[in-house]
Amino acid sequence: MNTTSPIHVGAVLFEGFELLDFYGPLEMFGLLEPAARISIVAKKAGAVRSSHGPCGMAEATMAGTGGFDVLLIPGGIGTRKEIANQPFLAELKRLAEASKLVATVCTGSLLLAKTGLLDGRKATSNKRVFQLVANSAPKVNWIAKARWVEDGKYFTASGVSAGMDMALAVIARLCSREKSLELARRAEYEWHEDASRDPFAASA
Amino acid sequence: MNTTSPIHVGAVLFEGFELLDFYGPLEMFGLLEPAARISIVAKKAGAVRSSHGPCGMAEATMAGTGGFDVLLIPGGIGTRKEIANQPFLAELKRLAEASKLVATVCTGSLLLAKTGLLDGRKATSNKRVFQLVANSAPKVNWIAKARWVEDGKYFTASGVSAGMDMALAVIARLCSREKSLELARRAEYEWHEDASRDPFAASA
Repeated sequence: MNTTSPIHVGAVLFEGFELLDFYGPLEMFGLLEPAARISIVAKKAGAVRSSHGPCGMAEATMAGTGGFDVLLIPGGIGTRKEIANQPFLAELKRLAEASKLVATVCTGSLLLAKTGLLDGRKATSNKRVFQLVANSAPKVNWIAKARWVEDGKYFTASGVSAGMDMALAVIARLCSREKSLELARRAEYEWHEDASRDPFAASA
Repeated sequence: MNTTSPIHVGAVLFEGFELLDFYGPLEMFGLLEPAARISIVAKKAGAVRSSHGPCGMAEATMAGTGGFDVLLIPGGIGTRKEIANQPFLAELKRLAEASKLVATVCTGSLLLAKTGLLDGRKATSNKRVFQLVANSAPKVNWIAKARWVEDGKYFTASGVSAGMDMALAVIARLCSREKSLELARRAEYEWHEDASRDPFAASA
């Protein structure tokens, strides 16, 4: 890690994204400032509506962007449409391949799986739709009990709030565990540090 | 609670708001859909930059809006400017008075305190700047050890991630504890249900 240039986090928006999938991890990365900077990308620049109504703002197009140190892919009801959107998946694949680390939250792992990049790899997803996700991408080694899963450069989190725990794990890999603990304290957040502890797996 | 009309949540944006203060609670309220709807307001409609860079989108002006069932006021570095912005505070006071419940996160409680509406009431705030906040609004009964505080129609949360716990407490009052527990499960979030449990108070 070159400590002289900030960690560049790229986060992908699409219609129907889940608010906390997106902004939970971005809060944690944002707390790294000035050691991190965040870029929001989407198919088109401009406002992008979340599943719950409030809009995020994309500053740039996916097509106009290279890779990032960390590529963040949220989930949400909008993934149901995007898993069949081949131009979107092609751009997502290009960005994921060009990025050093890729981090998904909730059904964001299904979007990434649909690019083929998770084939043969371990991953997890939202526990409420876990079997649907697993059936929809059978070449992935889906882990049913995990707060998040790391396999090489790919981090995949369980549902919604698990993205914050995963983001702190990404920061621990890029910086240090001590830095993640410091950021969690600043956010008054009790980091669930054990990736294998998953109180929501039983409801899968 | 009239169960036939959705709970109308109004959330206030200002330059330099903290991402998770804002979107953490909105995730929880959003999960109530269709029993809730969210409106984002600011001094002007349009994009509003957060402290970490990503922009939120205000759909309407504060001045053009009446009260809400729940008014959400985030904190963030931007509060340092807004506590001296009298037209903003006047609008905030009008909206808070016209709203059934008012919920603040982090230094959002200082903004609300500056309207005078918390005078003589119990409230809390971010633990890293607690004494600064308390000194800046001495007529408020600041509670140093609390995940969040309820006093009448006012809910004030500690730093950043405490807003999610408070939002679930607001939902418990408006709907039921069972509903809050259900939403927490859907978000795979371990609700810190005890408002008096505050692991971050010691660092105040």
